[in-house]
Amino acid sequence: MATRARALFLLLLATSSIIRPCFTGLRTSSRAPRSAMRRFSNAAAEWMEANGYEIKSKQGRGGSSWASFQTLETDKGDFFVKTSNRPAEKMFKGEALGLDALRAAGGVCVPRVVHYGDDDKGGSYIIMQKLSMGGRPNMKEFGRALAKMHLAEPADPTAKEGQFGFEVDNTIGGTPQSNTWTSSWLDFFREQRLGAQVRMAGSTELQRTWDQLLKETNNLKDLFTDVEVKPSILHGDLWSGNYEMTPEGVAIFDPATYYGHHEAEFGMSWCAGFNRDFWQGYREIIPEAPLFAKRRKLYEAYHIINHYNLFGGGYLYQGIGLLSP
Amino acid sequence: MATRARALFLLLLATSSIIRPCFTGLRTSSRAPRSAMRRFSNAAAEWMEANGYEIKSKQGRGGSSWASFQTLETDKGDFFVKTSNRPAEKMFKGEALGLDALRAAGGVCVPRVVHYGDDDKGGSYIIMQKLSMGGRPNMKEFGRALAKMHLAEPADPTAKEGQFGFEVDNTIGGTPQSNTWTSSWLDFFREQRLGAQVRMAGSTELQRTWDQLLKETNNLKDLFTDVEVKPSILHGDLWSGNYEMTPEGVAIFDPATYYGHHEAEFGMSWCAGFNRDFWQGYREIIPEAPLFAKRRKLYEAYHIINHYNLFGGGYLYQGIGLLSP
Repeated sequence: MATRARALFLLLLATSSIIRPCFTGLRTSSRAPRSAMRRFSNAAAEWMEANGYEIKSKQGRGGSSWASFQTLETDKGDFFVKTSNRPAEKMFKGEALGLDALRAAGGVCVPRVVHYGDDDKGGSYIIMQKLSMGGRPNMKEFGRALAKMHLAEPADPTAKEGQFGFEVDNTIGGTPQSNTWTSSWLDFFREQRLGAQVRMAGSTELQRTWDQLLKETNNLKDLFTDVEVKPSILHGDLWSGNYEMTPEGVAIFDPATYYGHHEAEFGMSWCAGFNRDFWQGYREIIPEAPLFAKRRKLYEAYHIINHYNLFGGGYLYQGIGLLSP
Repeated sequence: MATRARALFLLLLATSSIIRPCFTGLRTSSRAPRSAMRRFSNAAAEWMEANGYEIKSKQGRGGSSWASFQTLETDKGDFFVKTSNRPAEKMFKGEALGLDALRAAGGVCVPRVVHYGDDDKGGSYIIMQKLSMGGRPNMKEFGRALAKMHLAEPADPTAKEGQFGFEVDNTIGGTPQSNTWTSSWLDFFREQRLGAQVRMAGSTELQRTWDQLLKETNNLKDLFTDVEVKPSILHGDLWSGNYEMTPEGVAIFDPATYYGHHEAEFGMSWCAGFNRDFWQGYREIIPEAPLFAKRRKLYEAYHIINHYNLFGGGYLYQGIGLLSP
């Protein structure tokens, strides 16, 4: 991001009012690998102190293979910090911009990003609201809120003009995800989403199945005759580990945000536990389009083949199955 | 394990014939965290050379947050090596014994463990057959093979006597899994499986739901009136990332093995992509018991609540839903 745009963004973060107040704690594993535990940096705490927060306590919250987690109790509330040994431009910029774009759309509860930046050891951090969690989610309300988020007018001017993508690239479970702005949803999804995963998998049978599908559906056009696709802000990786109940409603976090077809949000719903209540709430606001069931297989295939690229195994077979007639 | 038992086990590994010849490559991410990449040890290669294998090439295969992966090409075939910075007793013993027990049952293809051991830096390694993969799985055949494995007479003498558990504890996706031998399946599952996860979650609502279920079902007994449960060897973590097609049939790997009720194998099937063909094959050999659908919720709850303990988020709500009447 250009320096000017970055300064504007940080100013925006610093001055933005809390669009929706919500507080929940991201639960993290207490069985984090030792390597991650070593990666704490004091840069986040130092930034907070330099910016008028008085820190009362710090607590390690484990980590993943690529980041360490911490909570900071301050005089102005509790915060959740992720630290990585890679620079912010590669690690946390996409997450920060994504969370901010989701918050801007309203509807669903999203943790507020306070700041992200580099430390002096080549690593980086992101500081966000610590959300407090609890209670059983009202799934119907969650469905409604997500539909409202999908229908919100895009905050991004390029998306507002009708383009699909995002201002930064990001990752989907560790796999790079390209978000170059594209005026056609079909072009975007075919080239930067599903096609990219199919190429990455390097399976001749999967490639052949995908080529055959493109040939039979006029490059997917025949599967989209019932809808006019508009850019919706998407969480992009909505499974059960990435939403949680808060006192103010269900919160979503750890996104892989971009502007795309709202139906693509359900590509991870095989692992999201959406029940009948959820779908009733969602469908009250966005009714099901006739060819949804067919497109859903495409949207699932993106994530299933990504799982193959990450984990291998039977996912390849599942991906081929989803793309087969 | 006592030294004598361990020596016996290593002798068994060294002399065991290939129960079912199969070769497939475990696919691993090329986007492994840098921390994992540093963890290679030469101990595995040294052991192989000391034991008559001539190494022609080594290749890094990425890693996870807790291990690094490598393939070794030798004059006696190709091998797959995992390296960790923790001792074998904690890391690879459970995997080695688990794979061996699964192989002993026959039915499904399982990579042969060549050796596991500690290196001189406090870490450890496991060396197994490198399986070659390819082709679309014959899911009906896979279903049949898994059912045969479940029906096999236990290789372990304690399991053969009708006890449930395993000779070592292991982990389920990073969470410790206790396998203390128990003569009653219900006691074993209630205390060492589902109950342990419920306690770990620390949610009063989940605990209340579980207590209520126990009360209403006479400590689960009412859900098992249609079956006589016998100890079956289980993979224990059977999802789409843990099976793959090989030229000789579907192979399973990365197990969390123990002897338990065969239906418990399907606790991960919400992420396993088992289709109608698979179930037809399985049910040809093991017909569905009347109360299977009710018990399946229990078996899923174990893994769903484990996912909550690992990842947090909406899994808690799913777990509560599975245990609710």
